[in-house]
Amino acid sequence: MPKRIYSSLNFENHPGIYSFASIAGKKEGEGPMKNYFDRIEPDPSFGEENWEKAESRLQSDTFQLALQKARLKPFDIDCMVAGDLINQCTGSSFAVRETKIPFLGVYGACSTMAESLLLAGILVDGGYSFRTAAVTSSHFSTAERQFRFPLSYGGQRTPTSQWTCTASGAVIVSSDPANSENSGNPGLYLAGGCIGKINDLGVTDSTNMGAAMAPAAADTIQRYLGDTKTCPEDYDAIVTGDLGKIGSELFIDLLLKQNLDLTKVHQDCGCLMFDDQQQDTHAGGSGCGCSASILCGYFLPKLQDHTFKKILFAATGALLSAMSPQQGESIPGICHLVEIRSE
Amino acid sequence: MPKRIYSSLNFENHPGIYSFASIAGKKEGEGPMKNYFDRIEPDPSFGEENWEKAESRLQSDTFQLALQKARLKPFDIDCMVAGDLINQCTGSSFAVRETKIPFLGVYGACSTMAESLLLAGILVDGGYSFRTAAVTSSHFSTAERQFRFPLSYGGQRTPTSQWTCTASGAVIVSSDPANSENSGNPGLYLAGGCIGKINDLGVTDSTNMGAAMAPAAADTIQRYLGDTKTCPEDYDAIVTGDLGKIGSELFIDLLLKQNLDLTKVHQDCGCLMFDDQQQDTHAGGSGCGCSASILCGYFLPKLQDHTFKKILFAATGALLSAMSPQQGESIPGICHLVEIRSE
Repeated sequence: MPKRIYSSLNFENHPGIYSFASIAGKKEGEGPMKNYFDRIEPDPSFGEENWEKAESRLQSDTFQLALQKARLKPFDIDCMVAGDLINQCTGSSFAVRETKIPFLGVYGACSTMAESLLLAGILVDGGYSFRTAAVTSSHFSTAERQFRFPLSYGGQRTPTSQWTCTASGAVIVSSDPANSENSGNPGLYLAGGCIGKINDLGVTDSTNMGAAMAPAAADTIQRYLGDTKTCPEDYDAIVTGDLGKIGSELFIDLLLKQNLDLTKVHQDCGCLMFDDQQQDTHAGGSGCGCSASILCGYFLPKLQDHTFKKILFAATGALLSAMSPQQGESIPGICHLVEIRSE
Repeated sequence: MPKRIYSSLNFENHPGIYSFASIAGKKEGEGPMKNYFDRIEPDPSFGEENWEKAESRLQSDTFQLALQKARLKPFDIDCMVAGDLINQCTGSSFAVRETKIPFLGVYGACSTMAESLLLAGILVDGGYSFRTAAVTSSHFSTAERQFRFPLSYGGQRTPTSQWTCTASGAVIVSSDPANSENSGNPGLYLAGGCIGKINDLGVTDSTNMGAAMAPAAADTIQRYLGDTKTCPEDYDAIVTGDLGKIGSELFIDLLLKQNLDLTKVHQDCGCLMFDDQQQDTHAGGSGCGCSASILCGYFLPKLQDHTFKKILFAATGALLSAMSPQQGESIPGICHLVEIRSE
C-alpha cells in the first residue's frame, strides 16, 4: 500500500500508541465524563500564580502522567509535538521547556490534538522518530480573558456559545513493538490520517464556532471515507472534536446531503463533556483540551478494552484571533483526522 | 543510511526544492539584500485595509509567485506548512484559506521557516506528500503593535533591539525528479535536518532576543555536526535565522567554548538584512520573514548557481508572548535546522 492514497495518509508501519493520559478541571470533572479522566484537579490555578502558568502546569503534568504510566523518562521521548490556544502558544513552550525534548510547535486551534497525532504518526511511521509525544491543553480562564472578557466582568454568554474546557491530553506514539513484554504498549495504533483543508462558509459570529467548524469536519471525513473506500458503519465511532450541539446538527445535515449518514456512529467531544441542563454550558465544551482529554480518557480506553476496534478521531479548529472578527473577517474552520485501531 | 541518526534526520530520498520566491517591504528593499528579492513592495499595506490583512496578502503573494515560477497551480500542491507571529497565526490561516490546500499550521516564532521546511522534508522524503509548500511571513507593523507599542506612539528602541522585517519566503518541496525536462526543479534538495530543543538561559529582556536565541542555535548546530560527523568547513555557509549582531557574537563564543570555530562560515540573516549605520535598525533584522526571504532571495540562488554546494539553514525563534515577560518569565529560545545541497 502506498503511504499516500489520494488526499489521505496510510501508516503502513502501524505506529503504536505506547501510553496516554488525561487531566481535567473541576467543572469538567463534574460532567458525564467524570469517571474516565486519569485525574481531576479541583484547583483551577494548578498551584501556579497566574492562569497561563496554570495551563502550562496542566499540560506538563498530563505529559508526565503519560510517561509514568509507561515507566518512561523524558529522555526516552525524541520529539514532542504540542500546541495550545494562548497567544504564541506559550502554554506549550513553557511546558516543554523543562523537558529538553526536541519540540515542534503547532497551531491548529481546537484541532491541535489531531494535528499533533497526525504529525506524530508521520514521524514514527516514516522512521524519523522512535517515540513522539502529542500533547495539548486548554484552560477556561486563559481562553476567556484572551478571547472574550475579563473573568471578573461576568459577561452573558449567548445560547450558541461553547465553554472552553480546562483539560489536557497526552499520547505517546512509538515504533516499539506492540504488546511486547517489557513495554506498556496498550495494543493500539494509528492506521492513517487526513490533513485538513480550511473551509470558510462565511460565519462571522465568533460565539457560534460550532457552525464555523462543521463544514471542515464534513469535508475531511468525507475525503477520508472516499479515499479509503470505507463507509461510516466500518467504524465503531466517528468522533468530532468540539462542534457542540449546533455544529453537530449542521455537520450531520451537511453529510446527509452527500448521502453519508453518520447518525449512528457520530460522537462529539464538545457534546460529551458537559451536561448542559445541569452545568449551564450552552452548546457544549470546546478548547484544544476538550477533544484531547476525551480521546485519552474515554475513547482510547474503549479501544484498549476492545469495546471499540476502529475509530476516526477528527478534531476541529476555528482559526480566528480575538482581533480578526473585529476586522470583519469570517471564521476559517479546519479539521484534521487520524484513524485509530486496536490490535 | 537510517532516517534518524542520533538526534538528527537524514533525508535519503533527497526531497527536491522545486521552486522558491521572496518578497520584501520598502525598508528591507533598501538594504544590502536589495538586489536579491524577487519583488520589493513599496506599499506597506499591500493594498489591504489593515496590517494583518497586509501580512496575509504578502504571504499569499509570495506563495503564488513560487507557484508561477514553476508553472504550478494551487491544486498541484498537496500540503502547506505555514506559520507567522500574529496571535493565533492568522497571517497564515487567512493566506492559506483561498487556496483549498491541506494545511498544517505551525508555530516556531522566527524559527518557523526552518520548522516548515523540516516538516516539508519529512512529508516528501517519507512519501506522505508529493509537493509540500513551506511558507512564512512577518510584517513590521503587525509585530510592532502586537508585541511592543502602538505604531503612532513612536517609542524609543534599545541598542540591543531588532527590527521586525516586512518580508516573506516560500519554498515548494517536491518528490519530482530533479532537473527533469518538464519541471522547474532548480537542482537543490534537502539532505537532512535537526529538530530544535528549547534552550532558556534565563534572559528576561525582551528587547534582547538575539541573546535569548543564541544558546538554542549553538545547541542545534552542535548536535547536527556531531550526529553527521561533519565539521564547519564542510559547509559553504552555516546560516542562522535572526540572531542579529549581539546574538551572533554570543553564538560564536558559545561554540568556540566547545572547540567549534564557525567564524569563517557563519552568516546571520538578521545581520545581512539591514545596514545599521544607514538604516538605524540597531542589532539587526528579525521576524519569520527575515530568514525566509533571505534564504529564498539570497542563499537558494547561490546554491542554484553553484557558488555554494552545501549550507545549513538554522532559523532561530524566541518562544515568548507579549504577556510572558510581564509575568516574570524568561525567554525560551529554539532553533530548527535543515541542510540544503545543490546536485
